[in-house]
Amino acid sequence: MNKNNTMKEICEALARADTVLIFPHISMDGDTLGSSIALCKGFRGLGKTAHVLIEEEIPEYLKFIDDGSCTFDLDVISEPDLCICVDCAHIERFIHRKDKFFEGKVTMCIDHHRTSECFADFNHIDHSAAATGEIVFNVLNEMGVAIDKGIGEAIYAAIITDTGNFQYSNTSVNSHLITAELFNLGIDHSYVCMMLYQNDRIEKLHISGKILGTIKMMAQGKAAMAYVTRDMLERAGALMTDTEGTSEILRNISGVELSLFAKETQFDETKFSIRSKTWVDVSEISMKYKGGGHKRAGGFTIKKPAFEAIKMIEADIEEYFASHSGENDN
Amino acid sequence: MNKNNTMKEICEALARADTVLIFPHISMDGDTLGSSIALCKGFRGLGKTAHVLIEEEIPEYLKFIDDGSCTFDLDVISEPDLCICVDCAHIERFIHRKDKFFEGKVTMCIDHHRTSECFADFNHIDHSAAATGEIVFNVLNEMGVAIDKGIGEAIYAAIITDTGNFQYSNTSVNSHLITAELFNLGIDHSYVCMMLYQNDRIEKLHISGKILGTIKMMAQGKAAMAYVTRDMLERAGALMTDTEGTSEILRNISGVELSLFAKETQFDETKFSIRSKTWVDVSEISMKYKGGGHKRAGGFTIKKPAFEAIKMIEADIEEYFASHSGENDN
Repeated sequence: MNKNNTMKEICEALARADTVLIFPHISMDGDTLGSSIALCKGFRGLGKTAHVLIEEEIPEYLKFIDDGSCTFDLDVISEPDLCICVDCAHIERFIHRKDKFFEGKVTMCIDHHRTSECFADFNHIDHSAAATGEIVFNVLNEMGVAIDKGIGEAIYAAIITDTGNFQYSNTSVNSHLITAELFNLGIDHSYVCMMLYQNDRIEKLHISGKILGTIKMMAQGKAAMAYVTRDMLERAGALMTDTEGTSEILRNISGVELSLFAKETQFDETKFSIRSKTWVDVSEISMKYKGGGHKRAGGFTIKKPAFEAIKMIEADIEEYFASHSGENDN
Repeated sequence: MNKNNTMKEICEALARADTVLIFPHISMDGDTLGSSIALCKGFRGLGKTAHVLIEEEIPEYLKFIDDGSCTFDLDVISEPDLCICVDCAHIERFIHRKDKFFEGKVTMCIDHHRTSECFADFNHIDHSAAATGEIVFNVLNEMGVAIDKGIGEAIYAAIITDTGNFQYSNTSVNSHLITAELFNLGIDHSYVCMMLYQNDRIEKLHISGKILGTIKMMAQGKAAMAYVTRDMLERAGALMTDTEGTSEILRNISGVELSLFAKETQFDETKFSIRSKTWVDVSEISMKYKGGGHKRAGGFTIKKPAFEAIKMIEADIEEYFASHSGENDN
């Protein structure tokens, strides 16, 4: 495995490159795309040739960040001096662009995930950053890029989406200090928030209403479960992505320690998202069903239609709380 | 009208007082309560006698901020040296405690509202502060208070609730710089967010699901309306306060410029909350019905049951967009 490089080492390598190809991860979010575009614009400002290479459409709510940085064209730069993947813990995160990535004369990974593997020639993995956007801000400053409003707003979008508007536990002093600097650079934070958060699909609200109608409380109010079936989605004209955030809504119920959201993804396949508030280690429950995750967020799949899968899980959840009764009550 | 005093002047007046009574406004929110409690704890740390005088129960989600600062007892301090109202633009905001307020040998108002009147002996109204909590942070620093975790968390709660987690347009460089200092003082921001935002009543989710089922799009998707009736509330066991935030959910629909949320408050009374995204001046519409508000948020009341009131408004909204067609399309 390669080593984790210092900020100085990666900036020196970046300075040597004239042509740069930037790789955000698949299932693009605000951090990977905002960070990639900020780098691209920064490099262009330094006179380099730079592009962000993508393999899927930019999600609607993130499209405002791009103003000509992104391309699907694998040949946009032949034999790039440098290929950088951004916010990617594993090669699988850009698997269909992997060959192009390793075509780079030099490869680099800039990331903040704890699970990040040092698979590139140069790696700068900073777990302390709440968003890769924070690292990118430091990189651009170190390289002497004049950070303008556009670059600033891309970094701001990266930070707020990856910190849940500064709420998540990863949020740090630096998240706020960097944001203060972005404000001083003249970003329009209200505009970014409006573009990110005020563009909900009407179908999302329709399916959300239906899902809220399925909430079932369990374990004397300590657990909450809701579901969405393929039929419900079809009737609302909604997509499964329209149900994002449901697990958190369920977890946020007063008194609820554990939430489960069952998504019928196929006729005989149900995916569960599982969240806890303060003490249940959900990875323990997920692993029982060959799933994974962290202490407070996880998931697993059961090869059954929703109603059968739910019935099975319900019994388990009741049993879990019965066997942990009194342990963490307050 | 009295003058607006400097930070130095109010801190000198504060320094002279041994007994201090603090007045948050009614319909307590995170800013008024967090700011009041932070001041109280800070003053106690300086050896003063201080209490926060309230006239209504602390809302459930804010109770964690108080640890013995708040009292209903009008006689907790007789003839206080100083009475301070916090985040109160008008005397009406503490109307039932008004006589006690003016019993103070010296009166003071610390606030950030543009509409704030200088009705006290000393007034420090800073419009540039996103939250009164920001002013309170500066006051405590100026007075040499050792800001501990508890005080810091009260101020943090004030700032995040009044800035919508740093999203609202009032959020400033200072909001982030002060928050960075609070982080350095060791606050547990995740704990505060959990207490504020992860304690939803289950009835809130039930009524929310029902309300989402009433959404009606108007004016070719530029306007969205939803409603709640007294019957719907009763069936869900919900309170009208459980419907807070609905106007914003409706405004956040993609393509929607104007949202209306109709609340049947009495058999023959319907209150409308009205919001706009970028160009409709909602105060113009509100005033037509003898309501009020700002450009982007307002409200008015119609003395009719919900369905009749809605029918009346619908026609008006369609007409409004027809007569403003093309004006601000993009």
